[in-house]
Amino acid sequence: MNQKVSAYAAKSAGAPLGPFDFEARSPREDDVAIDILFCGICHSDVHQVRNEWGNSQFPMVPGHEIIGRVTETGAKVQRFQSGDLVGVGCMVHSCQSCAPCHDHLEQFCEKGPAFTYNSTEMDRKTPTYGGYATKIVVREAFVLRVDPVLDPARAAPLLCAGITTYSPLRQWNCKAGDHVAVVGLGGLGHMAVKLAASMGAEVTVLSSSPAKERDAKRLGAHGFEIVRGPQDAARLAGRFNLIIDSVSAPHDYNAYLSMLRVKGVMVLLGVPPEPMPVGAFSLIGGNRRLAGSLIGGIQETQEMLDYCAAHKIEADIEIVPAQKINEAYERMMKSDVRYRFVIDIASLKA
Amino acid sequence: MNQKVSAYAAKSAGAPLGPFDFEARSPREDDVAIDILFCGICHSDVHQVRNEWGNSQFPMVPGHEIIGRVTETGAKVQRFQSGDLVGVGCMVHSCQSCAPCHDHLEQFCEKGPAFTYNSTEMDRKTPTYGGYATKIVVREAFVLRVDPVLDPARAAPLLCAGITTYSPLRQWNCKAGDHVAVVGLGGLGHMAVKLAASMGAEVTVLSSSPAKERDAKRLGAHGFEIVRGPQDAARLAGRFNLIIDSVSAPHDYNAYLSMLRVKGVMVLLGVPPEPMPVGAFSLIGGNRRLAGSLIGGIQETQEMLDYCAAHKIEADIEIVPAQKINEAYERMMKSDVRYRFVIDIASLKA
Repeated sequence: MNQKVSAYAAKSAGAPLGPFDFEARSPREDDVAIDILFCGICHSDVHQVRNEWGNSQFPMVPGHEIIGRVTETGAKVQRFQSGDLVGVGCMVHSCQSCAPCHDHLEQFCEKGPAFTYNSTEMDRKTPTYGGYATKIVVREAFVLRVDPVLDPARAAPLLCAGITTYSPLRQWNCKAGDHVAVVGLGGLGHMAVKLAASMGAEVTVLSSSPAKERDAKRLGAHGFEIVRGPQDAARLAGRFNLIIDSVSAPHDYNAYLSMLRVKGVMVLLGVPPEPMPVGAFSLIGGNRRLAGSLIGGIQETQEMLDYCAAHKIEADIEIVPAQKINEAYERMMKSDVRYRFVIDIASLKA
Repeated sequence: MNQKVSAYAAKSAGAPLGPFDFEARSPREDDVAIDILFCGICHSDVHQVRNEWGNSQFPMVPGHEIIGRVTETGAKVQRFQSGDLVGVGCMVHSCQSCAPCHDHLEQFCEKGPAFTYNSTEMDRKTPTYGGYATKIVVREAFVLRVDPVLDPARAAPLLCAGITTYSPLRQWNCKAGDHVAVVGLGGLGHMAVKLAASMGAEVTVLSSSPAKERDAKRLGAHGFEIVRGPQDAARLAGRFNLIIDSVSAPHDYNAYLSMLRVKGVMVLLGVPPEPMPVGAFSLIGGNRRLAGSLIGGIQETQEMLDYCAAHKIEADIEIVPAQKINEAYERMMKSDVRYRFVIDIASLKA
């Protein structure tokens, strides 16, 4: 029997979000039905609600940082049972047969994954609705175990902000003694600081705002450096093995590349509105690398959740009821959040 | 006793090269004196003779693709003896004590290596003179063994063009079955094709000129694709594990990045005159990487020479006497060479 779901949705591009009801499918044999407890608010929610990427479908129920409890499982589900604490991240399905899917990189599924919202199931017809909702039904293979040692609300942002920063740290072998810089101290950046520090790296936050220093240190950064112009880049030349760049505003890649050691890597997580100029010698001098990274595959997301449980790493959050989502969006656009809004889904169940 | 050397030198920026005599130092206990047989002409010779990088010192004896025979060895020299066929590449010394030197990446020596010409010894006073000359005296640690199975003239370009293309193929683990694209079929590009093919990769040359196809195939390329605009990039989307980009003219990095597979790498070897725009999503989509690579360290250069001897890989060259260097420069600037000019140093000994 289909399940009635209470949600918050955008009805059209840029419209404020408001209450929206829909029916989730009755769990199939490989499905897990989840009662959602908390859902983080990601920057990409705002971009998509406002159709800033030009691919928005309405009504849209955003949300891909989902923590909940299993209420029902299909006959073939083996890893979960009723009452389990679980998570759902940015994807709910993929073709499962292409090369990237075989390599556990479902985010690059050649057919295009089924994203958790503003997307369709792999039938390319059925719309997907995200976590600003009381329930979600997801195939077992895309449901993540969440260790109860983690606080459910503070664990929610791990499903996107967590994996987005954990994956590049692993791809580039972040380890004890590495010098890691984090550019931008927002939802992603604050997780990058916590994760890199937990791996034993010497972490430095690079910021244009002295006001961030206290928080940077509290989050685990060992160093804090103001970076505003070429003299700052010169001062930090050749300092870092790895730079995690979470900034979406235009900024000078070459200045940051010059801060890398030989064979150092700068990883882009943010997408500035325009292409940024890169001087070939910024890379050739020092065999340096500029890389991109997009969320992470399901296997790595599980690895990250287990890692965070083992190291007791959670996001810094501010909990809001669904009725304050629009206000939270406005504040987030002004960077007025430390460091993630998380919706208490109980506010939708009243 | 100092050794009298006949050479060809530029006396000032942009002046034609002409005969120039100087004295090389008498071999010290760790020195190897070399009678030069052949020296390749590298694009960087022209850039430096014309002071296009703004750091030229005159008189300048260019040349860092040097093959010769040992004539004398210092008392502590162990690996070489008179008559040995040897090579000298882009460097003749480095501090030997910094982190990059310890990592066998002397090209990134923190004190700055002593380059083979247009540079100074590590005393930062004594000018270095390159291979457009009858003799050179070099510390044992910077002299490379050249297996006599290699033709001395055709081996000369390995010392720069060879290592510059070999190193990124090794850094990025080029292996059998990989799909490797080579952009630009000049001195570097033709070596990249030969080397990548020898490693078992499926090699495709990307060019704007259909006239290059025949040569590309002759050099070992399996595929040849015309790339002129966005429709060509779309046709080749997601095709390659590795792109070796040897082009110094401005070109659209994003178009080539789109041709990479998931986690694929594009390596820049050429330096366009201006920074090129890079869209963050060109890298984030597919966790792609844009990297630079600069020549290679001494250990890797030896490895490359041994590899080329084992696989009988040599450059395609046109031999010229020293008296035709200026003409060769003009022709090279018009890409009228297949694929490297090599100076027959016998022409300086008459």
